[in-house]
Parts: sequence; C-alpha cells; structure tokens
Amino acid sequence: VAHASVDDLALPDDERGHLEFLVAAHGLTAIERVNRVLDGSRGETSAEHSWHLALTALALAPSVAAKLDLLDVLAMLLVHDVVEVDAGDVPIYDADARAAAEATEQVAAQRLFGLLPAPDTARLADLWGAFEAAQTPEARFARAVDRLQPILVHWAGDGAAWRERGVTVAQERALAEVVGGFWPALKPLADALIDDAQRRGMLAD
Amino acid sequence: VAHASVDDLALPDDERGHLEFLVAAHGLTAIERVNRVLDGSRGETSAEHSWHLALTALALAPSVAAKLDLLDVLAMLLVHDVVEVDAGDVPIYDADARAAAEATEQVAAQRLFGLLPAPDTARLADLWGAFEAAQTPEARFARAVDRLQPILVHWAGDGAAWRERGVTVAQERALAEVVGGFWPALKPLADALIDDAQRRGMLAD
Repeated sequence: VAHASVDDLALPDDERGHLEFLVAAHGLTAIERVNRVLDGSRGETSAEHSWHLALTALALAPSVAAKLDLLDVLAMLLVHDVVEVDAGDVPIYDADARAAAEATEQVAAQRLFGLLPAPDTARLADLWGAFEAAQTPEARFARAVDRLQPILVHWAGDGAAWRERGVTVAQERALAEVVGGFWPALKPLADALIDDAQRRGMLAD
Repeated sequence: VAHASVDDLALPDDERGHLEFLVAAHGLTAIERVNRVLDGSRGETSAEHSWHLALTALALAPSVAAKLDLLDVLAMLLVHDVVEVDAGDVPIYDADARAAAEATEQVAAQRLFGLLPAPDTARLADLWGAFEAAQTPEARFARAVDRLQPILVHWAGDGAAWRERGVTVAQERALAEVVGGFWPALKPLADALIDDAQRRGMLAD
C-alpha cells in the first residue's frame, strides 16, 4: 500500500505545498543531537532543541534584548535547523565537518523551503539565511541563544554527554566567547554555567 | 553527589530564575503524546509538538491569518504545553480526564511560571491563560493549529496510532469541527486530511 501523499489531498496546490513542507519538517524529530534530555536517556532531538531555543529567547528577551524584533528572532529559531532533515546534525565540536556541511545545507534549504508556495519559500529561506549570516541584531541574538542553550542542557544533565566525549573546559570557554561575541549580555550566563561545571568536574582539564 | 542546581550559579536571582524555568520546561521532552513521529517508532514529545505548532503557524499565517499579531500566536504556542511538565499530557479523546486536568494544570502553571522573575511570570502565565481562554483571534488561531496539527501528523504516519486506538471517522470529524470553530480557514485542511484518511481506511467507521 502506498504511503499517505499530499498528492491525494483535495486541496489547492498552495495548501498541499504547506502541508508537504510541514510533514517533511517533522523529520527533525528523527535528528538526535549530542546533548541529552534531562534524565540522560537519549539525545535531544533537533525539533526539541528548536522549541527550547525559541522558549529561551521568549523568556530572556525583555531582560537582555528588549529592543529587538522578537518575532524575527523566534521565526529564525523555528526554522534554523529545518535543513537538518536532509543534512543531519553536525556536532559543534567537529570544525571540519561543520565547514563541509555548508554546501549540503544549501541544497537542503532549496529542497525543503522549496516545498512551500513561492512567497513562503522566499520568506522562510530568508529567515534561515539571515540566521546563518548573523548580520542583524536579531540574528546575532538568535545565534547566541543557539550556543548558550546546549551549555545549559549539558549542565542540567550533570554533564553526562560532556564526560562521555571528554569535552574540556577550554572547549566550553571558547563557546562562551562565541556567545559573548554574538550577544554580550548572555556571556555571564554561559560563564556561570561553565564555572559550576568545572567545579563539579563535568568537564575535562 | 548532589545534582547541578541553579543555587550554585554565581548569578543574580533573576537570571537564576530564568535558567531554573528553562531547565524545568525542558521536561516537556519527557512527555509523550498519542500521535507518533513519522516512522511510528515512538510518540511525539510535547516539546516537539510545541515546535511543530509554532512552525505551522509561521508557515500558514500569511495565507489564512494575515491580520493577526503573529508574535502573540507564536509566544502562546511556545508556552501552551509547559504545564504538562507537572500535569502530563491528557489525550484529547478522553473528555473526563481533560476536565479533571484543569485544576492540576492551574497548579502547574503557578509553580512553573512562578520560577521566573515576577514580570516574566505574569507575561508567560498570561500567554498560557489567553491560549486556554480562547477569546482573542490570536488565541483562537493558535487553538485551531493545536487541533489541526495532530490530524496532519497522524495522517502522515499512515494512521498507525489511530488504528491502534480504534479512532473513528466521527471522532476526527468532530475535531475538524473544533478546528473550524476556532478558525474557519483551516477547516478545509482538516477535512481534506480526514477524507483521505477515511478513503485509506486509517480510521474506523
């Protein structure tokens, strides 16, 4: 029996395009990241990560980024990982693989956002491109949140995934610098988490 | 060894409150829903559901809800399930349990949003309350998306969870009415999905 297909839905092309994109994007539930869920039982999925980033931005924005267009921030965070449906997640600790992934992610963006009707293709692809380019204040805040949240989740899980991979204090201090480079007001949070992680021996020397 | 605690972080109270809330909210990754991920291997988590709802609203809003405050819609969808960290997910098919859950969810909202600094407690609790009350156009669109998305995900998974529970065409038609009651422009999408599900035998008579 053939699988359910949007081609069989009695809807205009544009609405079928919306639904095809939304079904494809749901594939982010199959992409597991390095950091774990709180009880350590499995990796956080990129779908869960995307939600938690948006919630983090929503919670923190009035305190540390009050002048930003928060809608733009949330929209970028909601779409920023969709390319992983085709390209997979590349751990931040692997710099060579991250560079190689860029071309793959461009192709993935064209295919996935291309499932949408044309105006929405452009709108969502532009959000993804703005996040990647990190030029606007909104994109820089979003990028900082994307670097801060894994530190928080690793720490909250008592550093289980850090220990397993032998992640070092220096590696996390470098990530805190990235957070601060994108959004200085978030660096104290990254620093405090890494200080405590170091004190508790979650990170290697 | 004691677990990582925000009490040990060298940060002002407000910032510790933000982080404590964000860690607690991450517990939505442990709440599994009735509808499955696309390959049927497990239930979608409430964290994944929340992300996919927000993405759905972002993708569809210009076509079907262009006049709404989209930031308000996304913010409501990002927080609407946070109470499930304490109260769990109550399947929509169980009307008695849904009614009983309301008091539990009020207590959960007080505890969880109460972890935040006071202005953010009020802001996020108000978003949750507005979603539950379903009085504003933004809340009604958000509620419609929350009812449409499971139909889409069940359908995309070839109705595996529907079949297992013996969910009927009449039950899903009733949900399509709820979608249409909240946001008429989304009802044709629900109808088309249920029509195809019925044709393919995903739903019981």
